Amino acid sequence: MALEKPAETQYPIHDLIRRRWSPRAFAGRPVEPEKLGSLLEAARWGASCFNQQPWFFIVAKQDEGDSFNRLLNCLVEGNRAWAQRAPVLMLSVAKLTFDEGGQPNRHALHDVGFAAGTLCLQATALGLVVHQMAGFDMGKARETFRIPEGYEPVAAIALGYQDEPGVLSDKLQAKERTPRTRKELSGFVFSGTWGNRAAFLKSK
Amino acid sequence: MALEKPAETQYPIHDLIRRRWSPRAFAGRPVEPEKLGSLLEAARWGASCFNQQPWFFIVAKQDEGDSFNRLLNCLVEGNRAWAQRAPVLMLSVAKLTFDEGGQPNRHALHDVGFAAGTLCLQATALGLVVHQMAGFDMGKARETFRIPEGYEPVAAIALGYQDEPGVLSDKLQAKERTPRTRKELSGFVFSGTWGNRAAFLKSK
Repeated sequence: MALEKPAETQYPIHDLIRRRWSPRAFAGRPVEPEKLGSLLEAARWGASCFNQQPWFFIVAKQDEGDSFNRLLNCLVEGNRAWAQRAPVLMLSVAKLTFDEGGQPNRHALHDVGFAAGTLCLQATALGLVVHQMAGFDMGKARETFRIPEGYEPVAAIALGYQDEPGVLSDKLQAKERTPRTRKELSGFVFSGTWGNRAAFLKSK
Repeated sequence: MALEKPAETQYPIHDLIRRRWSPRAFAGRPVEPEKLGSLLEAARWGASCFNQQPWFFIVAKQDEGDSFNRLLNCLVEGNRAWAQRAPVLMLSVAKLTFDEGGQPNRHALHDVGFAAGTLCLQATALGLVVHQMAGFDMGKARETFRIPEGYEPVAAIALGYQDEPGVLSDKLQAKERTPRTRKELSGFVFSGTWGNRAAFLKSK
């Protein structure tokens, strides 16, 4: 059975957001091209600064072979151990400058993150899971996929259908079963001035 | 009637993602504290690099007065014109370094963007709308809310219930009614190498 880890919340949230998490146990089942299209379509409709849409995705399907292995080889070893099971790997890339004028776009990575968020929730809606990774070799990824200057590889992404934790090594199974944790709302929601607990928050 | 602008998609996407957009016409109706809590709870359950949760939010409700006006005054004039109608303004802030060791967190803004994405979709689920703005004075925001070194003001956020476009000036009404546009999928979804259209994509 695939492991579920619904968020324990103080305020109700939509089921898609509550159920989304980042498992490591992927099933061999391939992802239907139509569903893959829906994930990227969801990213496409993210919000962005001056509608620059600074998000780009390199997609490597396991059944395509070569480019999947090249992307896998960009990951740090700890991630490769489980991400090799994922039927699809992706790399998100940010365009760092504005299309017109070429000035730096301070919100490029932010907007890629927004698009990644809609992509992940679309995945949950389709019964898929996504795990984003910071642990990859940025220079190697740039070289491998000929990512031009002015664009920055942001995150490696594993996605597919979820499998039971038992397919993982003991060490990774333990990670998989670790409860999800988050700061209290009062630790990051302020009003009036920095660090000041927002008055509208319920006391826990 | 509130204006709807559902995304025109090539692949089906979840209704929350399809309907989300960034209107400027806000109704006077206040946002219930419980719903505001749900928005921030949704942000709380975003994914982040090493679970750093680098997102922070300063929340200013219109009915609280002073801090709302102080945040409003940080906006550029073009945004102030319509954002002053919003019952809630927020400022997202990123912590730029890791909690342990203090090294730069390259994904800080990305992860704030992810959290902003889940917040916006939670808003859609609750019948609320959100409009994020890059157009504000970062230094003034830092000073006004005493945001410490190592943290960066990211986006100003207007949120509330939507009103009909007619409440806006003619110029803003025209903006409000402009169709939403996005690049084609083939413009940002690649495989094999940079710029190479992904084979799984349907031809349009």
